[in-house]
Amino acid sequence: MTAVCLRNIKLTLEYQGTHYCGWQVQDRASVKKPSIQMTIENALFKLLGKKVKLIGSGRTDAGVHAREQVANFKTKSAIKLDKLRLGLNALLPEDIAVTRAEEVPAAFHSRFDAKSKLYRYSVLNRTWRSALMRDFVYLFPHKLDLDLMRRESKSLLGKHDFRAFRTCDGEERDTVKVIKDMKINRSGGLISIDLEADGFLYNMARSIVGTLLEIGRGKLPAGSLRSILLSRDRRKAGPCVPAKGLCLVKVEY
Amino acid sequence: MTAVCLRNIKLTLEYQGTHYCGWQVQDRASVKKPSIQMTIENALFKLLGKKVKLIGSGRTDAGVHAREQVANFKTKSAIKLDKLRLGLNALLPEDIAVTRAEEVPAAFHSRFDAKSKLYRYSVLNRTWRSALMRDFVYLFPHKLDLDLMRRESKSLLGKHDFRAFRTCDGEERDTVKVIKDMKINRSGGLISIDLEADGFLYNMARSIVGTLLEIGRGKLPAGSLRSILLSRDRRKAGPCVPAKGLCLVKVEY
Repeated sequence: MTAVCLRNIKLTLEYQGTHYCGWQVQDRASVKKPSIQMTIENALFKLLGKKVKLIGSGRTDAGVHAREQVANFKTKSAIKLDKLRLGLNALLPEDIAVTRAEEVPAAFHSRFDAKSKLYRYSVLNRTWRSALMRDFVYLFPHKLDLDLMRRESKSLLGKHDFRAFRTCDGEERDTVKVIKDMKINRSGGLISIDLEADGFLYNMARSIVGTLLEIGRGKLPAGSLRSILLSRDRRKAGPCVPAKGLCLVKVEY
Repeated sequence: MTAVCLRNIKLTLEYQGTHYCGWQVQDRASVKKPSIQMTIENALFKLLGKKVKLIGSGRTDAGVHAREQVANFKTKSAIKLDKLRLGLNALLPEDIAVTRAEEVPAAFHSRFDAKSKLYRYSVLNRTWRSALMRDFVYLFPHKLDLDLMRRESKSLLGKHDFRAFRTCDGEERDTVKVIKDMKINRSGGLISIDLEADGFLYNMARSIVGTLLEIGRGKLPAGSLRSILLSRDRRKAGPCVPAKGLCLVKVEY
């Protein structure tokens, strides 16, 4: 028996999703943009000379950003971790960066081992657009009752079936998730809505934020978030807000 | 005598300088990028039907950003200020935005009346690049002694002849300026260097920051900032750091 030394490498990734079809390759023929995953796999192939399969902690949708996405891959290469990060950052386009490269135990799996994820949705709550933040915020000009939104958001905390907040493209069988924390903060015109959960359904974060905004501006009555959740009917939820406001901030293991 | 009602309009502008040759039109034939000033003047022409001359508080160089640049123009148009901002934001490219439009007394002049300007230079002090901040920070991987830099910067405070920190393109006759405040802060890998002065010479902020970084990493001895200042010799100053790290934060009147 030959001992094959297969290393398991964990990458921490930062990216601006604007010019990508999302983390994963899309099957739809209409999608012309590259995926984040494939872009990094191509860079790894150039660097290591072998094809590797990169496993992400989860998909991020087209246009969604990440401050600390996590992914891992297995390789026989003896490349030093510093050189790996340096090489990948030289090969990757400027809107994707590797912030850490670590060797982890063979059993580590980016997706299965993820305990929770923190997403932040950024709303620019004023009537005029921003030139500097344009790719990272959703311009929402209507007056918002943040206290009401904070009270409403409490009804989502804990373990629930979140299928009402999944859009039709979602194919997950298990629609039960645990929302661990939600925070809504304002700094000037900028509102950040933080959602921490053990996992997210397709478009779940954006549907929750869209519903919260409708409640905050008075278009949906107080108590709507709870009744929509309990209805398990996706037609009842508010609109799905644009991807560009969403950022995967952190994955906890 | 006919009373001509000439209104004086003050605009507050936010822009990402990446794709522009700077605030002002460049004479050099090599410059292919548009200027911020001309881009806004063109939008004003479309909106008002008349050519106007837009006066900025001062030039920002190619690639330099602004959070609150100020400019004014005179017009006979009776357009409402809200409509003016809305119309300009609809006509301008997405990397330029009008954040305020106000009517000011006829005597107000964006450049002559500016009392002080605050510039911020952002240094990413780590060895790996950032995907999200890439257009707004200068990646500087060397270890820096911030306390030394803070002590050094004190020698620039007050009224001095800053010609040592002006690059050769500068044509200003009056090279005496007053630096009112300098602040150096760190948040994780991000260092911000704030410079507040009654005015800045061509490339002055970037030459000062470049010199400070050389001192902070030990390439220039302590006391260098003061001796370079007193030398009035631009060949003695450190390198001019890249434009993309610089942002005009505020103009005070």
